[in-house]
Amino acid sequence: MATLCRPAIAVPEYVITQEQTLDLARELHAGHPQLDLALRLIANTGVRTRHLVQPIEDTLRHPGLTSRNARYEAEAKARVPEAAYRALAHADLAPCDIDMIIYVSCTGFMMPSLTAWLINTMGFRPQTRQLPIAQLGCAAGGAAINRAHDFCTAYPQANVLILCCEFCSLCYQPTDLAVGNLLSNGLFGDAIAAAVVRGQSCRGIRLDHNGSHLVPGTEQWISYTVRETGFHFMLDKRVPGTMADLAPALREMAGLRGQDISRLAFYIIHAGGPRILDDLCTYLKLPPAMFRYSRATLTERGNIASAVIFDALDRFFDAESVDHADQGIIAGFGPGITAEITLGTWNATGEPVIPVQARETTQHVGNPAQTNKPQRAHDALPAPLRR
Amino acid sequence: MATLCRPAIAVPEYVITQEQTLDLARELHAGHPQLDLALRLIANTGVRTRHLVQPIEDTLRHPGLTSRNARYEAEAKARVPEAAYRALAHADLAPCDIDMIIYVSCTGFMMPSLTAWLINTMGFRPQTRQLPIAQLGCAAGGAAINRAHDFCTAYPQANVLILCCEFCSLCYQPTDLAVGNLLSNGLFGDAIAAAVVRGQSCRGIRLDHNGSHLVPGTEQWISYTVRETGFHFMLDKRVPGTMADLAPALREMAGLRGQDISRLAFYIIHAGGPRILDDLCTYLKLPPAMFRYSRATLTERGNIASAVIFDALDRFFDAESVDHADQGIIAGFGPGITAEITLGTWNATGEPVIPVQARETTQHVGNPAQTNKPQRAHDALPAPLRR
Repeated sequence: MATLCRPAIAVPEYVITQEQTLDLARELHAGHPQLDLALRLIANTGVRTRHLVQPIEDTLRHPGLTSRNARYEAEAKARVPEAAYRALAHADLAPCDIDMIIYVSCTGFMMPSLTAWLINTMGFRPQTRQLPIAQLGCAAGGAAINRAHDFCTAYPQANVLILCCEFCSLCYQPTDLAVGNLLSNGLFGDAIAAAVVRGQSCRGIRLDHNGSHLVPGTEQWISYTVRETGFHFMLDKRVPGTMADLAPALREMAGLRGQDISRLAFYIIHAGGPRILDDLCTYLKLPPAMFRYSRATLTERGNIASAVIFDALDRFFDAESVDHADQGIIAGFGPGITAEITLGTWNATGEPVIPVQARETTQHVGNPAQTNKPQRAHDALPAPLRR
Repeated sequence: MATLCRPAIAVPEYVITQEQTLDLARELHAGHPQLDLALRLIANTGVRTRHLVQPIEDTLRHPGLTSRNARYEAEAKARVPEAAYRALAHADLAPCDIDMIIYVSCTGFMMPSLTAWLINTMGFRPQTRQLPIAQLGCAAGGAAINRAHDFCTAYPQANVLILCCEFCSLCYQPTDLAVGNLLSNGLFGDAIAAAVVRGQSCRGIRLDHNGSHLVPGTEQWISYTVRETGFHFMLDKRVPGTMADLAPALREMAGLRGQDISRLAFYIIHAGGPRILDDLCTYLKLPPAMFRYSRATLTERGNIASAVIFDALDRFFDAESVDHADQGIIAGFGPGITAEITLGTWNATGEPVIPVQARETTQHVGNPAQTNKPQRAHDALPAPLRR
């Protein structure tokens, strides 16, 4: 069974604290009619520190798109391989064992994507499939896990390397002054995440089921406008409210596997902001501590886009707080508004894992809730959603 | 078995002929030290006509990246749904039957990708997976087929809609004056392609095996530089020479399935330019007519990037020139330099198809050449390429 191994996280060396962020906002936006609101929103994020690829003085300058994208490429080449090697080591694999690289990044653009350079540089086989994803934003980390899961379901001997490279600070736009932008300037951070999905059982999170959910009519709520100055991020104030739509989607997906979304052992949730985590906790009737890994990521790194769920996953692996065969959920949220959802089972031993439920009910042959066979989301849907 | 259904192609209404292209090159680049070479290269492409989303006068103006990308989005929204509906009709499916949309485009950038708008607009289910690919260039058409094949191998009841939207004319850069750019200005055209991969057997090309191949050390040969003015395309003069590396990769992949690359019934090859088709014909010891569908695409549409193999496929479906169970290959080439390769079997009846070879040798149980089980590229590789 496809298993997500322990991720590797790398954060760059320049750090900015919330105090520094608030001071900067006061200085840069003195006289902004909604400055007080922006300061309150930034303070409420709970983000204590963020990491940046360059000093804050350089971050605040916009040297032009040519220079910025060249910087993106240089920083990616300088930083991604080290994280990739660590993730491979966690999975006990070498580059030549990898069948597909999923490279996820929405904060710079290269064609060919970094995958070609990585294959040429790091010793991956020329036959390695390349899957670069640039347009799923923060949801792309979850999408990468889910597409890796699909690939290993199709080819159970395969191994997939996921790489998330997010330098959000290279998308800072000094002329964007909406409250959503001022908030974003205090929320997003830079980070790299790498993780392997192995087709065969090993220590990690066995991937049981995945799915996607788009909240209808929200495609403008988180979006880029592409301009001469690069990507201009737009964050609608209605975004946090989407948990009212996504909580039922999470509940339904857990239900398809016979699970109660409010009684899972672990939750790795996109740490997009405090409201997202608080609201989802409320809707799912969970104590705040159940999202502690995501909250720690938000506090220490900020919203690091597609890398955010991997940083929370790394803390989860570190904590070793659940028992073998305990079940949980991973959910990445991003533009669309899209949720990429994964149901998984903790495998502490590396041997094939039989879930607790299944162990208790193995006499019930054919119980669909316990089957590990590939399912088709479509077939599992309630009839009204199908043709 | 996953089957590629008949594609739908849409080309925009504005047409430019080779004569007009040559006249324009003479007019715009009078005095260019390599004008004669550029004119010769353009004439040698054999491209007779190309389609554009706007009149040539507007194409030649660069209104700035903001305006260009907005134009890309407007044209995509105006043109993609019609092609998508036709592809769905070819597959006898409705939007609610689709489990994943793979949207491929390297000539504009949107986040969220067009997939979110399509789901909201065309009646796809909110659970439809979105896989936007922007960074595989011309190889992305083949990659889309291969990732759809993988997905349907994992979930045999699933259906995937592939959409390629390429408005190459919106990447015209009037200040790029290298010979490779002058040639590109006479080579690329605009088009949309759509096609469904069904998990279950139907009339079309049964997808048997897929793989990827990166030519080592060539990642700069076809590339974008991202600048204030958008994507700047770079085409190295060594690119056509890469068929010397890709021909063995195609041969090896066919060999893995017990097939002789020089004796297949059909060839759908990326019509990147005449040299690519001519050289590959020579290396594979094939008569030029074996690439007739790709040649017709090149002549009538030019290089339409990721859509190019679907236009050739459409001509192949139209010709009905092969017999049920005949075997062939689809190969898309693009930046990396990457080849995305598919081996398939023509299914004329819609019933599950047993290849000719297998019918002749069914007594040889376990012959790997005839197995239809998912394979892992890694395991099938010669030992020296593995760890």
